[in-house]
Amino acid sequence: MKLTRYFPILTWGREYSRVALSNDLMAALIVTIMLIPQSLAYALLAGLPPEAGLYASIVPILLYTVFGTSHSLAVGPVAVVSLMTAAALSNIVEQGTMGYAVAALSLAGLSGVMLLAMGLLRLGFIANFLSHPVIAGFITASGVIIAASQLKHIFGIEAHGHNLLELVVSLSTHLTETHFVTATIGITATVFLFWVRKGLKPLLVKLRLGTIVIGVMVKTGPVVVVVATTVAVWAFGLADQGVRIVGDVPQSLPPFTLPSASPALLGQLLLPAFLISVIGFVESISVAQTLAAKKRQRIDPDQELIGLGAANIGASLTGGFPVTGGFSRSVVNFNAGAETPAAGAFTAIGLAIAAVALTPLIYFLPKATLAATIVVAVVSLVDFSILKRSWHYSKADFSAVLVTILLTLLLGVEAGVSAGVGLSILLHLYKSSKPHIAEVGQVPGTQHYRNILRHAVITDPTIVTLRVDESLYFANARFLEDKIQNRVARDRTIRHVILQCSAINEIDLSALESLETINQRLQEMDVQLHLSEVKGPVMDRLKREHFLTDLTGKVFLSQFEATNALQDKEKAHNPNT
Amino acid sequence: MKLTRYFPILTWGREYSRVALSNDLMAALIVTIMLIPQSLAYALLAGLPPEAGLYASIVPILLYTVFGTSHSLAVGPVAVVSLMTAAALSNIVEQGTMGYAVAALSLAGLSGVMLLAMGLLRLGFIANFLSHPVIAGFITASGVIIAASQLKHIFGIEAHGHNLLELVVSLSTHLTETHFVTATIGITATVFLFWVRKGLKPLLVKLRLGTIVIGVMVKTGPVVVVVATTVAVWAFGLADQGVRIVGDVPQSLPPFTLPSASPALLGQLLLPAFLISVIGFVESISVAQTLAAKKRQRIDPDQELIGLGAANIGASLTGGFPVTGGFSRSVVNFNAGAETPAAGAFTAIGLAIAAVALTPLIYFLPKATLAATIVVAVVSLVDFSILKRSWHYSKADFSAVLVTILLTLLLGVEAGVSAGVGLSILLHLYKSSKPHIAEVGQVPGTQHYRNILRHAVITDPTIVTLRVDESLYFANARFLEDKIQNRVARDRTIRHVILQCSAINEIDLSALESLETINQRLQEMDVQLHLSEVKGPVMDRLKREHFLTDLTGKVFLSQFEATNALQDKEKAHNPNT
Repeated sequence: MKLTRYFPILTWGREYSRVALSNDLMAALIVTIMLIPQSLAYALLAGLPPEAGLYASIVPILLYTVFGTSHSLAVGPVAVVSLMTAAALSNIVEQGTMGYAVAALSLAGLSGVMLLAMGLLRLGFIANFLSHPVIAGFITASGVIIAASQLKHIFGIEAHGHNLLELVVSLSTHLTETHFVTATIGITATVFLFWVRKGLKPLLVKLRLGTIVIGVMVKTGPVVVVVATTVAVWAFGLADQGVRIVGDVPQSLPPFTLPSASPALLGQLLLPAFLISVIGFVESISVAQTLAAKKRQRIDPDQELIGLGAANIGASLTGGFPVTGGFSRSVVNFNAGAETPAAGAFTAIGLAIAAVALTPLIYFLPKATLAATIVVAVVSLVDFSILKRSWHYSKADFSAVLVTILLTLLLGVEAGVSAGVGLSILLHLYKSSKPHIAEVGQVPGTQHYRNILRHAVITDPTIVTLRVDESLYFANARFLEDKIQNRVARDRTIRHVILQCSAINEIDLSALESLETINQRLQEMDVQLHLSEVKGPVMDRLKREHFLTDLTGKVFLSQFEATNALQDKEKAHNPNT
Repeated sequence: MKLTRYFPILTWGREYSRVALSNDLMAALIVTIMLIPQSLAYALLAGLPPEAGLYASIVPILLYTVFGTSHSLAVGPVAVVSLMTAAALSNIVEQGTMGYAVAALSLAGLSGVMLLAMGLLRLGFIANFLSHPVIAGFITASGVIIAASQLKHIFGIEAHGHNLLELVVSLSTHLTETHFVTATIGITATVFLFWVRKGLKPLLVKLRLGTIVIGVMVKTGPVVVVVATTVAVWAFGLADQGVRIVGDVPQSLPPFTLPSASPALLGQLLLPAFLISVIGFVESISVAQTLAAKKRQRIDPDQELIGLGAANIGASLTGGFPVTGGFSRSVVNFNAGAETPAAGAFTAIGLAIAAVALTPLIYFLPKATLAATIVVAVVSLVDFSILKRSWHYSKADFSAVLVTILLTLLLGVEAGVSAGVGLSILLHLYKSSKPHIAEVGQVPGTQHYRNILRHAVITDPTIVTLRVDESLYFANARFLEDKIQNRVARDRTIRHVILQCSAINEIDLSALESLETINQRLQEMDVQLHLSEVKGPVMDRLKREHFLTDLTGKVFLSQFEATNALQDKEKAHNPNT
């Protein structure tokens, strides 16, 4: 049992059929063709030599096949994580040096260990603190930065920077140095790829081709561009005219590599590795869940952490860089008919063949082409509509999005995502520290009690009923104290305060002590405190303490019962009223 | 209106009566007598010359009289804040130097500005994040450290350290150097003061004296000890034998002083000033609220921040150090009959007279006596029972207390309180990120729905009803996705999922998007999603978005209605079952 939990391959592998095999092989072929240009391009984005992209897609996929629970996820380098890798490493080592590649290995290794630890310790909930608005804002801002960072390759100029401001300044300074042949290739490739996305699809739909065929044709657009521009550079000798090309790529299987063990380096990589782990996990698990739902399959988030952890450790030992489950390639894999994680293993074999056999063919591949594929891929990530949507729905969510987008653009990816998460948590705590407390009265002719400000309800001058719409815990305990004291201090006719507890899911020790304080202070004002509609688990906990015996009033099962009993009591006291 | 809000003195001052005047004068006299030794002692604890204690009790009290809303609070140096002052300053400047006194002024000034800003910006809720268990743990641990730090004065030896470990090591090293005359004074004073607290009170009760008289007599114990030991040192020339005495204290009104404006110093003081502000505010507001409740008076927490802010700024400009509302002196003030904040102003006048006229009399006051008064005062703060209590009530609260106590004792006050607050927030977030989700069924013969694991209820194989006992927000949104997907994926008879929303007080944008995802994934499994018992404000917000139109199922007013409608629908579909 335990073994199959940690090695999902033992479950699906046992039932592996001939049909699954042929489906998986077909899917693997399509994904391989799509992944070759993509992996080269993301290596470029990460600031690494192109072969690193291929290596990062071989062993990591194999390991995910063994440990992963998704039957459709395709693991490898992805845009946002590659950008984060470049941002993290460029602060520490210079691009193009040996140290840079080693730092990339270390980043992958560190991230792998963190993911693995989170999986084994079942800490996957940490990823939940990345709220959807923060992720949306972060992805959008990252898309903008990535696209901007690739413009230098498209125009054949030098430019640096890891936030939008730096990039824009650097690009505009060097724009006059544009290399026109490179720019022609880059811009043509970009326009063509956009057309494939936006113009080709409607055309193919008109031709009544099947959706899967259309999907594949659209996704192979980059391959067409890669082949065409490579041939053009080779045929017309454009490399001699200054078009930057990929050049020599070693013909080899992934090498065995070791990440650095330098504590100083690892220390500097801790925060980036953590953010890469969490963001990569969130991206991956969302894709995996979405695809699994289509087939009523289950995803185990903790085991996914282990699978991604193993994949990243694999990347760090075989010349790669941080990887995760990618959205577009997983969708292609799913649509192409992948039935089991074995499709991933076959993709890895396909890429290994490419690494050994095909690399001489990409000698003349212009970097501008790779940049064009990146730009077109990430532009689809950019979606500022989240700003409008969150503005309408909730100002708290809106502020989190806005801060994330602005800080990501202006200060960089780490600052943006950290600030977004921090702000979301603070706003959540702030909201729950000032919970909605409604004074309620009886809706005439019913046993229902509603807000006196919203409804025409019956109240009794000697009784105040307050409904707290939040669990009581330390952050709002004192707020409740103040609220009740102020309400009672200004109205000397009050003899009873009822707390309607229907929305209270928890009372922590701070809140309990506040209730004791409230009880005691009310007693000094000659007012009784009662509770109504207390939930079972909350009541269980209250019984562990002496609060219920100290309570000046009673605990009533329902609010209706409470009001009736107290009104009867008051009448017995003052028979004339 | 606005003016009276910010200057409460304009309200109570207008109605000030002759009766109130005589009551306030009486209370002021008693508090002044009690405050003289206390303020000298707390200055010693803060590492400052004794007159600083008197200065810190004059102008600050006057300013609180103008700005404060409590009619009973007595402001001045208190034990915990004085300890925190010493801990903060000793890391930065050497005790006994001029720089140390200036740093104390700066700390008070910075804390005053922070309190004022929090009051004006209505940020008092920040203090709510100090949970009761963290405060209780912190006060207990501080009490232990304060008592330990005073032992050197009682034994007449040198010892240093700001956490228990350092103190114990330092004390045990130097214990052989004990100065016996000093120790005799110190131990006698301590024992006498303990006896006054524990032994004298029962004796006076037996003599049938009034409770107020008893209270005053017990509180004047320190004055008796101060007078007796001072006379003894003077009469027997003990100072020449090496008993450390207070010595020359300038005969003067509080001087005009300026805090440092050095950015480096202020930067180092930021965190300590913030913690001192928050902890001081919490201590002060609790006392103020408790005493106000006894007379059905109202306390305005935001205005209290302004009052304490003004008091601390006053302290920084008149040779003092951080102050706040103290527990024991406020209780004495209240019991002695103080009716308005004017009692504070009269106390300030009393202390000003003492500063000018009485300081020569304390030349021979031994430091061991002051240390004894501190030890006896703080021992009452030490209460480890919070450990036992929180252990029984909730393990989360227990961990917060334990971490606070251990880190305060071992690393110091700032580390302790920061870790305690951080851990409480993390545990709260963790708990709400994995909310209680109950699958419910109908209690036979009723319209109630309860947990299927706890009750014998009726369920329908085609319908799953889940009740989430927590508001839905980013930290638990994905948890809900996983939970529902796993529940539905394993049971192919399910046709409807109902979310009973009675305990959901909020749905943020992340949770809304998760609900959309759930809706879509369920649709792909051919399962409808329904909601029941959605609260008004939550429904209002949902209506701003297209979720309700995309929802595959319906929103039902009650759970009973939902089940009935869906069962009817299923019957209509499959008339044979």
